[in-house]
Amino acid sequence: MHVNRATARAFANIAFIKYWGNRDNKLRLPVNGSLSMNLAGLYTETMVRWDSRLQSDTLVLNQRAATEDARKRVAEHLDVLRARLGLVGYAAVESHNNFPMGAGIASSAAAFAALTVAAVGAAGMELSERELTTLARLGSGSASRSVPAGFVEWYAGDTHEDSYAESFAAPEYWDLVDVIAVVSAEHKAVVSARGHQSANTSELQVARVGGAAARLTACKESVLNRDFMAFADVVEHDSNLMHAVMMTSRPPLFYWLPATLTIMGAVRDWRAEGLQVCYTLDAGPNVHCLCMSNHAPEVESRLRATPGVEAVLVAGAGGAAQVITSAN
Amino acid sequence: MHVNRATARAFANIAFIKYWGNRDNKLRLPVNGSLSMNLAGLYTETMVRWDSRLQSDTLVLNQRAATEDARKRVAEHLDVLRARLGLVGYAAVESHNNFPMGAGIASSAAAFAALTVAAVGAAGMELSERELTTLARLGSGSASRSVPAGFVEWYAGDTHEDSYAESFAAPEYWDLVDVIAVVSAEHKAVVSARGHQSANTSELQVARVGGAAARLTACKESVLNRDFMAFADVVEHDSNLMHAVMMTSRPPLFYWLPATLTIMGAVRDWRAEGLQVCYTLDAGPNVHCLCMSNHAPEVESRLRATPGVEAVLVAGAGGAAQVITSAN
Repeated sequence: MHVNRATARAFANIAFIKYWGNRDNKLRLPVNGSLSMNLAGLYTETMVRWDSRLQSDTLVLNQRAATEDARKRVAEHLDVLRARLGLVGYAAVESHNNFPMGAGIASSAAAFAALTVAAVGAAGMELSERELTTLARLGSGSASRSVPAGFVEWYAGDTHEDSYAESFAAPEYWDLVDVIAVVSAEHKAVVSARGHQSANTSELQVARVGGAAARLTACKESVLNRDFMAFADVVEHDSNLMHAVMMTSRPPLFYWLPATLTIMGAVRDWRAEGLQVCYTLDAGPNVHCLCMSNHAPEVESRLRATPGVEAVLVAGAGGAAQVITSAN
Repeated sequence: MHVNRATARAFANIAFIKYWGNRDNKLRLPVNGSLSMNLAGLYTETMVRWDSRLQSDTLVLNQRAATEDARKRVAEHLDVLRARLGLVGYAAVESHNNFPMGAGIASSAAAFAALTVAAVGAAGMELSERELTTLARLGSGSASRSVPAGFVEWYAGDTHEDSYAESFAAPEYWDLVDVIAVVSAEHKAVVSARGHQSANTSELQVARVGGAAARLTACKESVLNRDFMAFADVVEHDSNLMHAVMMTSRPPLFYWLPATLTIMGAVRDWRAEGLQVCYTLDAGPNVHCLCMSNHAPEVESRLRATPGVEAVLVAGAGGAAQVITSAN
């Protein structure tokens, strides 16, 4: 057997309760549990071909040879997978996203979820979803959340095996929609992996983490009760807390652009007017406007009319990462 | 004696280490000590006339009859002063600022410092500067810092008498200049007095307060050593911490406008290029760009060229609050 390949698709996810900071940077054990929703239609597709003839791992990203930094990060993750799968050969990897990379639409989450699922599939192995989430986590923490379907909880855990993700509600459980205002599609200046390592340089991080479990419980209940106003309250607060930590890290991390601030204010005003919408931001300037599906067209049209908004993406709750084709 | 009047002038001040939150709202005992500089040229002038013929306290603000809310707040402060001075009559008060009110250029600080000094002067009394700072504090916390000259420390204290302010360096000690980018001269939606009461609703406030004494010491040393880079580091961080607490209060207080964010980023970039400038913000959207006097013209011209900047005010270190005219 020279060639054994599979292609997997994984959706990006948006965190309702944020992951920011690790208790173990190597194992990417987070300081707090997090909650998210997969984003239907915003995906990474990754083909992995285990090929004993290769002299090294190779990576093609969005139809171009990847940078050496990107290739190395993928090769390091493949080392982890080789060890687990008992493989010795290298892999050819081809990956592409259908959304802009590096601008707060967690591209590394979808990427490492797809890479993990494709690499395991290409080896002809079947692993439990729980184990797949832990393996994906080693590549990028939030990738663990892009493996299961729909609304997902990632448990902080104490060990590699304990820090896994699982679905707590199916995609169709709640008709929540993420209307994403893209205010910049440029690649961000500070990648999240480095940001996580700086989280402890803010004296506010301890307090953010201290309340995270209670916020997670409140958020999960609001989803299960389909209680939008309770959901909005905790989701915006959790996002504000994470950005408060970022802005007070040393050196400070300011991800917001002027248009980001405009949209955050507008969303609060729109909700006061009766639109069921709230905002959350990842480590980037784009504003994820979470709303009930019947309000999504109005939110989309208002965002398109807002100065500084370059594009608007709309996504409902997405499914699990999965192999879509495989071949020998 | 029917009439006894005095006019006092007090300068606004800009805090380097912020006051945000009280341990006692009635006495306005702050949760942490703070540091500031008076702003030469940006002042309130207040005339107080004790007049036994009046049926109530009256207030004219910037040549107009004041709102009843403003008149009541002044009357309450006059109650405190009447009790201390052993007076029974009412007062006619006329006050005006030469800078825009309520947009983060602490107008209440200059106002209550001038009111206190004028009311005491109009009564023909002399009180120690220390006592004047404590009396001014009862009207508006940061007013205590507008009483002494130049660079001022306000001690948190445990009692009314302990919570006073004093100068730790004269105005001419360091040629620091505040170049203020006014991005909005509108009156702010949430007055500071109410903001202080909401500070404890942010779970980040405890950590901000916990580090305040160390930041104050570092900041004071940087002023005394005339070490601009050390000053910039602690001043921006302290401002970021206060706004982090504001944005995570319930409900959140967002004072920044889009142009605020633009200027904050620009100031960090300018400093990286070699300009000795840093930013700090009070409870408002205007950006105080603190710089060495030889860099002030360049900072002013860059700010005037920045979109969203409505006006630029420039102030060096100002003197003490004092009576400028009095009459019987």
